[in-house]
Amino acid sequence: MDEKDIRKLLEDIKNDKISIEDGLKEIANYPFKDIGYAMIDNHREIRVGYPEVIYCKGKTVEQVTGIVQCMLERNCNILATRADEEMYNAVYNICKDAQYNKTARIITIKRKDISIPESFIAVVTAGTSDIPVAEEAAATAEFLGNRVERIFDVGVAGIHRLFSRIDIIRAAKVVVVVAGMEGALASVVAGLIDKPVIAVPTSVGYGANFGGLSALLTMLNSCASGVSVVNIDNGFGAGYLSSMINKL
Amino acid sequence: MDEKDIRKLLEDIKNDKISIEDGLKEIANYPFKDIGYAMIDNHREIRVGYPEVIYCKGKTVEQVTGIVQCMLERNCNILATRADEEMYNAVYNICKDAQYNKTARIITIKRKDISIPESFIAVVTAGTSDIPVAEEAAATAEFLGNRVERIFDVGVAGIHRLFSRIDIIRAAKVVVVVAGMEGALASVVAGLIDKPVIAVPTSVGYGANFGGLSALLTMLNSCASGVSVVNIDNGFGAGYLSSMINKL
Amino acid sequence: MDEKDIRKLLEDIKNDKISIEDGLKEIANYPFKDIGYAMIDNHREIRVGYPEVIYCKGKTVEQVTGIVQCMLERNCNILATRADEEMYNAVYNICKDAQYNKTARIITIKRKDISIPESFIAVVTAGTSDIPVAEEAAATAEFLGNRVERIFDVGVAGIHRLFSRIDIIRAAKVVVVVAGMEGALASVVAGLIDKPVIAVPTSVGYGANFGGLSALLTMLNSCASGVSVVNIDNGFGAGYLSSMINKL
Amino acid sequence: MDEKDIRKLLEDIKNDKISIEDGLKEIANYPFKDIGYAMIDNHREIRVGYPEVIYCKGKTVEQVTGIVQCMLERNCNILATRADEEMYNAVYNICKDAQYNKTARIITIKRKDISIPESFIAVVTAGTSDIPVAEEAAATAEFLGNRVERIFDVGVAGIHRLFSRIDIIRAAKVVVVVAGMEGALASVVAGLIDKPVIAVPTSVGYGANFGGLSALLTMLNSCASGVSVVNIDNGFGAGYLSSMINKL
Amino acid sequence: MDEKDIRKLLEDIKNDKISIEDGLKEIANYPFKDIGYAMIDNHREIRVGYPEVIYCKGKTVEQVTGIVQCMLERNCNILATRADEEMYNAVYNICKDAQYNKTARIITIKRKDISIPESFIAVVTAGTSDIPVAEEAAATAEFLGNRVERIFDVGVAGIHRLFSRIDIIRAAKVVVVVAGMEGALASVVAGLIDKPVIAVPTSVGYGANFGGLSALLTMLNSCASGVSVVNIDNGFGAGYLSSMINKL
Amino acid sequence: MDEKDIRKLLEDIKNDKISIEDGLKEIANYPFKDIGYAMIDNHREIRVGYPEVIYCKGKTVEQVTGIVQCMLERNCNILATRADEEMYNAVYNICKDAQYNKTARIITIKRKDISIPESFIAVVTAGTSDIPVAEEAAATAEFLGNRVERIFDVGVAGIHRLFSRIDIIRAAKVVVVVAGMEGALASVVAGLIDKPVIAVPTSVGYGANFGGLSALLTMLNSCASGVSVVNIDNGFGAGYLSSMINKL
Amino acid sequence: MDEKDIRKLLEDIKNDKISIEDGLKEIANYPFKDIGYAMIDNHREIRVGYPEVIYCKGKTVEQVTGIVQCMLERNCNILATRADEEMYNAVYNICKDAQYNKTARIITIKRKDISIPESFIAVVTAGTSDIPVAEEAAATAEFLGNRVERIFDVGVAGIHRLFSRIDIIRAAKVVVVVAGMEGALASVVAGLIDKPVIAVPTSVGYGANFGGLSALLTMLNSCASGVSVVNIDNGFGAGYLSSMINKL
Amino acid sequence: MDEKDIRKLLEDIKNDKISIEDGLKEIANYPFKDIGYAMIDNHREIRVGYPEVIYCKGKTVEQVTGIVQCMLERNCNILATRADEEMYNAVYNICKDAQYNKTARIITIKRKDISIPESFIAVVTAGTSDIPVAEEAAATAEFLGNRVERIFDVGVAGIHRLFSRIDIIRAAKVVVVVAGMEGALASVVAGLIDKPVIAVPTSVGYGANFGGLSALLTMLNSCASGVSVVNIDNGFGAGYLSSMINKL
Repeated sequence: MDEKDIRKLLEDIKNDKISIEDGLKEIANYPFKDIGYAMIDNHREIRVGYPEVIYCKGKTVEQVTGIVQCMLERNCNILATRADEEMYNAVYNICKDAQYNKTARIITIKRKDISIPESFIAVVTAGTSDIPVAEEAAATAEFLGNRVERIFDVGVAGIHRLFSRIDIIRAAKVVVVVAGMEGALASVVAGLIDKPVIAVPTSVGYGANFGGLSALLTMLNSCASGVSVVNIDNGFGAGYLSSMINKL
Repeated sequence: MDEKDIRKLLEDIKNDKISIEDGLKEIANYPFKDIGYAMIDNHREIRVGYPEVIYCKGKTVEQVTGIVQCMLERNCNILATRADEEMYNAVYNICKDAQYNKTARIITIKRKDISIPESFIAVVTAGTSDIPVAEEAAATAEFLGNRVERIFDVGVAGIHRLFSRIDIIRAAKVVVVVAGMEGALASVVAGLIDKPVIAVPTSVGYGANFGGLSALLTMLNSCASGVSVVNIDNGFGAGYLSSMINKL
Repeated sequence: MDEKDIRKLLEDIKNDKISIEDGLKEIANYPFKDIGYAMIDNHREIRVGYPEVIYCKGKTVEQVTGIVQCMLERNCNILATRADEEMYNAVYNICKDAQYNKTARIITIKRKDISIPESFIAVVTAGTSDIPVAEEAAATAEFLGNRVERIFDVGVAGIHRLFSRIDIIRAAKVVVVVAGMEGALASVVAGLIDKPVIAVPTSVGYGANFGGLSALLTMLNSCASGVSVVNIDNGFGAGYLSSMINKL
Repeated sequence: MDEKDIRKLLEDIKNDKISIEDGLKEIANYPFKDIGYAMIDNHREIRVGYPEVIYCKGKTVEQVTGIVQCMLERNCNILATRADEEMYNAVYNICKDAQYNKTARIITIKRKDISIPESFIAVVTAGTSDIPVAEEAAATAEFLGNRVERIFDVGVAGIHRLFSRIDIIRAAKVVVVVAGMEGALASVVAGLIDKPVIAVPTSVGYGANFGGLSALLTMLNSCASGVSVVNIDNGFGAGYLSSMINKL
Repeated sequence: MDEKDIRKLLEDIKNDKISIEDGLKEIANYPFKDIGYAMIDNHREIRVGYPEVIYCKGKTVEQVTGIVQCMLERNCNILATRADEEMYNAVYNICKDAQYNKTARIITIKRKDISIPESFIAVVTAGTSDIPVAEEAAATAEFLGNRVERIFDVGVAGIHRLFSRIDIIRAAKVVVVVAGMEGALASVVAGLIDKPVIAVPTSVGYGANFGGLSALLTMLNSCASGVSVVNIDNGFGAGYLSSMINKL
Repeated sequence: MDEKDIRKLLEDIKNDKISIEDGLKEIANYPFKDIGYAMIDNHREIRVGYPEVIYCKGKTVEQVTGIVQCMLERNCNILATRADEEMYNAVYNICKDAQYNKTARIITIKRKDISIPESFIAVVTAGTSDIPVAEEAAATAEFLGNRVERIFDVGVAGIHRLFSRIDIIRAAKVVVVVAGMEGALASVVAGLIDKPVIAVPTSVGYGANFGGLSALLTMLNSCASGVSVVNIDNGFGAGYLSSMINKL
Repeated sequence: MDEKDIRKLLEDIKNDKISIEDGLKEIANYPFKDIGYAMIDNHREIRVGYPEVIYCKGKTVEQVTGIVQCMLERNCNILATRADEEMYNAVYNICKDAQYNKTARIITIKRKDISIPESFIAVVTAGTSDIPVAEEAAATAEFLGNRVERIFDVGVAGIHRLFSRIDIIRAAKVVVVVAGMEGALASVVAGLIDKPVIAVPTSVGYGANFGGLSALLTMLNSCASGVSVVNIDNGFGAGYLSSMINKL
Repeated sequence: MDEKDIRKLLEDIKNDKISIEDGLKEIANYPFKDIGYAMIDNHREIRVGYPEVIYCKGKTVEQVTGIVQCMLERNCNILATRADEEMYNAVYNICKDAQYNKTARIITIKRKDISIPESFIAVVTAGTSDIPVAEEAAATAEFLGNRVERIFDVGVAGIHRLFSRIDIIRAAKVVVVVAGMEGALASVVAGLIDKPVIAVPTSVGYGANFGGLSALLTMLNSCASGVSVVNIDNGFGAGYLSSMINKL
């Protein structure tokens, strides 16, 4: 049900083709489906351009499969994040098309094609341990219809590794920088390029990293311009936002 | 032993029907029972209108069943929160009337009826993952004699879901809003209604939610008036307070 | 000195037109000018597309005017942020073209025109007290060559104010949301549009806002996708990044 | 413009008495007035039952008087909080009815009477230094049409002071407890009564009170039921909420 | 080796009965024994009046039994805290006199009698869940030669429970108050008595108790005089200090 | 009105010499005097052994002089802490006996003598900058009737300074250790003596001392037994508690 | 490939012995090897004097063995930290020379000898529980070619233990002090010697040690000069830095 | 009084040339001078190699001049940090040789020459606003007898500025890196050189820099080896430690 449908409905009310009461119900059912423990946001795709995403953590297996079932009926592309293997197996049982990216902990089901722009997104990590978060970002962006270049393990402790790859980073339309510990990579990258940098602090590290707080504060206080920050370990959010920018 | 009993006792002392010493002992035994590891607050029902509630976390199974046993002798309605299944099984063994709400982690034993007012309480959640805390609130309020309407998964990321249910929320006498992550729902709801909003931050989320701190601070800083806040994940507290207000 | 110049220089070295030693010196002087207390980043405009910006706080009046003087010689457009009136007066004394935006605390000197794209940036605030930070963002974006729409005081405590302006917000290419206290506006806006939202927490509020921490955490934990965050009160950073995205 | 007006407008549209376009404009102008730096929420009184309140901190004198002027035209009762004497003098200049409560830092202008219920609100403080915050609560509640009993300086260090006043506290319909330092008073009061307790932590104290954090955490962790908490030093919020509950 | 021995040694040096070199070695071996992973502080009993205590957490079973073995050779009374059952079993294997207080997680070995003063220590808890920490305090004080009165579960949510036991608390020479959640009990007790109160915050609670921080801050900010605070869950420290004061 | 007076009153009620109503009033007026903004705790001296103390910060000059006036009528010794010179001048105007200790920011008025025990209190500081807090402790203890030895500037950076004074410290009945920065002195002293150590963290320092947090945490985590802690900069609390212990 | 090789390469380009394109490739491959999930920093040994170190936490077993394999091919000495036994077994399977220090959780493979200077490093701990971190420091320093003296369990609670070993500590060229809880040992040691002290806070302790924060703050605020601090539990960092200083 | 004097004294005691009592007094007076509010550490120069330093903040002008006077009598070189101009004027009045470095807020008095090693210290800043802290470090190191190279404003936002100066940094024996905001420079520098890096976080910045916490955490979590950290804004500490290392 898209804008045209709604306009027609309103004209029908105006023209007494349907009663106000019946019109109200139709409209009421349209934007989401209430399945008790969740209100599936059917309207979302029209409103913000992407289907709703299932954040699995804190949901039961029954809840996740229930939501998937409900979305399958509407033939959506489905993305479920923070999914463990048990979650995947349950989803796979109801949909054999379901794919699992174990590193990224992402389940995807593709039902319709999405056009992919020429420009691409660079996903950069400081270290090897940051890869799971980076993969969540990359896989999200790919699911949403983007080309992604991965540049991993180029942190500031050996900055020549970064310089060797700076050309590919500069060629991207938007760059996701994933770093834990002191998180300095985002500032260094942003100082070298003229494209938006989405910084993702990770909880990689120990002691005074306080679960990612150190990298988070580093990135928020970046002296380089063009940097903005998402939540600690929020690869999905960075992937989603980078897709949004890449498609502008 | 209620107010009338005490007044009589004092008159008996005045009239030398009983000695001061004996009177003292009688009074001393009245307000609570000391069972070594706990002083069961028998006086509480008279003083604050509700029987004492058993908070199970940090208590041994023996302690909880001991307290239940002791309250059963006084024929109280019993509410035990933060109870796992092992706790429930032990309580069930000494009282076959014991009910268990697994989502809410609440054990209840009903021994006397409580009158239920016309007005009702709305319990609203931002997401599906907030439901266990919301259920603790709802089940507590129901146990204390209230009608509860549950409106789940209407968070601000898709605010039309909230608007579709705003009428039922507006009709409530008091509203409990349960939200994790950024916890913005409490402010939005409070800006739309003219009833008290009890905000319950949850620990749902990750990274910079710092175990619920983000939602807690959001709710404390609400720019909408009429919002007050209870502890993180404190569904019980919200349910109890909403009952208190609903019965005013 | 731009890329062409450098390429030529390298060819001259290759072809023995100039010695390696002379070439080295020329290159060495090119990317920045060392004036003792500051290394003015002349190379920046080529590297990241914008001239260097002067952050006045913590610098002496002498240092700021010294840097301005030095940039004027290179005929740059100049932007100085966090400048008080004393700072402005000193700059004005050496350059009568200097403009001062008192609310935004920004000094600007325009020496060359910048092309302005069709698309525009929306700068949105939750409250009146957030306007100084929003103005810093808006004035920065305008200085960098963008059209800006200001939508002020549409916070979630009266959400219909936001809805009345949602069309203009939706029409923007990128949206800057400035909010203090609980900072919930960013999530609500992001849930309603399909464009990137740059969230700027402000230190507006008191008590448990902890100098802007509450709004910062709210925005980082946004349950709506498409939100990224800059430092507390960092209007400049948001204006700069929004310009970068608006010109993609 | 109240609900009846809107209903009539919609019927007129339905009956073709006015065009959709004209109807839209009329509705658009109704809920708030945009004066550039503020959107005055005219709709608020209908929606949440009270007129909008002006929070002065962070606003210029011009902004506050502009908003007051605009509300005076609509003949509202006006409440401005966190107002210093300069702010009051400016408001007084445009409205000689303006009253100033210096301790509470509140400006009030009364234009219409509000009915006052039989029941009353108790405002209780732990110490003398908590009085300014308590006065903000009390004066707010009185402005909104409530009877208030003040019980000051009855903190837990000399708990018999509290007991001497417990009867008047028990008789209230809702109790506001204002306390700094360790903030223990809220729990003690809540353990003694059967009415809702709104706890207001204050920044009174030093050292490890961390600007009110100690009292805030104490109140959030209250082991007594029936307590909810507002922001540090938020006397206004407590006064507003207590009025809401007192009028249920 | 006590003070007399040392004095004699020095006189022997003075009188050339032993060489300086030999004297040095004897003195060197006296104050502690180096067993590689630990330096057992033999001197401690003379210096501060009590033998060294073994804090088991973070030590291996081998290390703990090694230290016990070494102290047994010197015929000390031995106290080991934070010991789990595996630790106890290993100690029991080398010394059948070893006792285990499971609630307090304390191992004790008594080898010499300690005189017990007339006066006594009161150990008071707010709730049942605080008992393990209180037992650590009580068992430590008893081991060090004190009479202890336990008064458990008398928290401020039902303050009459405290008043029923206030006489025994007042009769103590020093009072240990153990409380989690909001930790208000220490202030209330200190306001009612004229003896030192040692406050022990516990990590009992959840959410915004932040692992005991709430009770800690409450106690540090106590408005009642005569309160001092030890580390969160530090029952041992409170027991030790209360013994020190009780024996003054 | 002391215990004897109360006993007599109760007997008079028992013997019908006075009516219950009259008796109630007499008792009601006895324990404190309500002067509007403060309830002066007359009962305190009987209950906890010392008169009430006036904490001046956050009180107006009028409030402080009002409380002093009221206490003078009852002929108490008066101690007012955190008093600036303006406060002192106002008190001096109504009582020429008032003394001012400028370093300690303490006003004292002596009206009756207090017996002073043989034993004494040692007040020790790590540095010169800690002296104001130490003086608050020392002056408080002296006011309450104790002999005090001051040992200043013996911090751990030059530990031989401490050792040169250790004999006088060991001779004290209780030791107050005042230290800012890293606050290590309390542990070192406690490891060398067998008396209670009251540790006072100060806000002396900068940067990562976070207003005294560093010293506070150091002292709470002391590995030496016999240490308890009061609030940051709380010299009064340490002086009061040390007096209590010195008089045991 | 060392500096000489690079110089030759550049001369060959200059002299047209090899083309710029070929030269570029050779240089590109030289400083690190990209194996997908890691960029092994071959250049590091030349640049900073030591081979790259493998931080195992957060890496998979496959990743660690892959990196080891790759480094073995270049005949490096290999150091892998934070390695559990499973990690070691996997490494052992591909290289029988691999040694495992279980306490330090360090895997080492020695392929070439390193010269060891005369001077030595002292590694000092406050308690027994700090030994694993100290061992990480000591083993790292030994791997890098240093002589290490271990002085364990000499914390400030029994400061004579420290004095008995102070001569060996004073003889070191640089001292590593490892301490948890209140972490006071670093200041005391630094006050007694004239050599750099590298302070390592550990997470040993509980409650208000907040995972090592207390020791960290103590050390950062040290009033003794000559102290610098590494991350909580970062034995490796301290060992590495001490080696660097010891070899100056 | 140096080591030889003490040895002689001890031999004199042994040989009965002086009595034990007289010897004791002589030794007692030797290591420091007690002037009431300060114990001047005369022994320090022998013990740790440098004279004591006066930290002026928190001391009165009288105290500082008193300490200076006392040290002048012993003909020491004097260094006073965190001194404002009023402090300097007072010192100048008693010693016309006193020099004032206004940027560094340091007073120095030179009385004896110190030998200066060949090697030098590099002091590097990220920005212009970091210069005062860097000057404190540089001036301290120069006072203690070192050659210092200043490299200012080479932060990571324009990393080519750093590379242009990397040769001079690499030539230093030890490097002090001073940076606020995100503090990333320390990691980048440490990754490029093989010498110890002393990182000094500064409080430069705003918002989520939390007074220097962001830079502090960044530096503590540095992924580059060879970095250790001193307190926020502690230029003195870094200068002192760098001198210590430079003279090894």
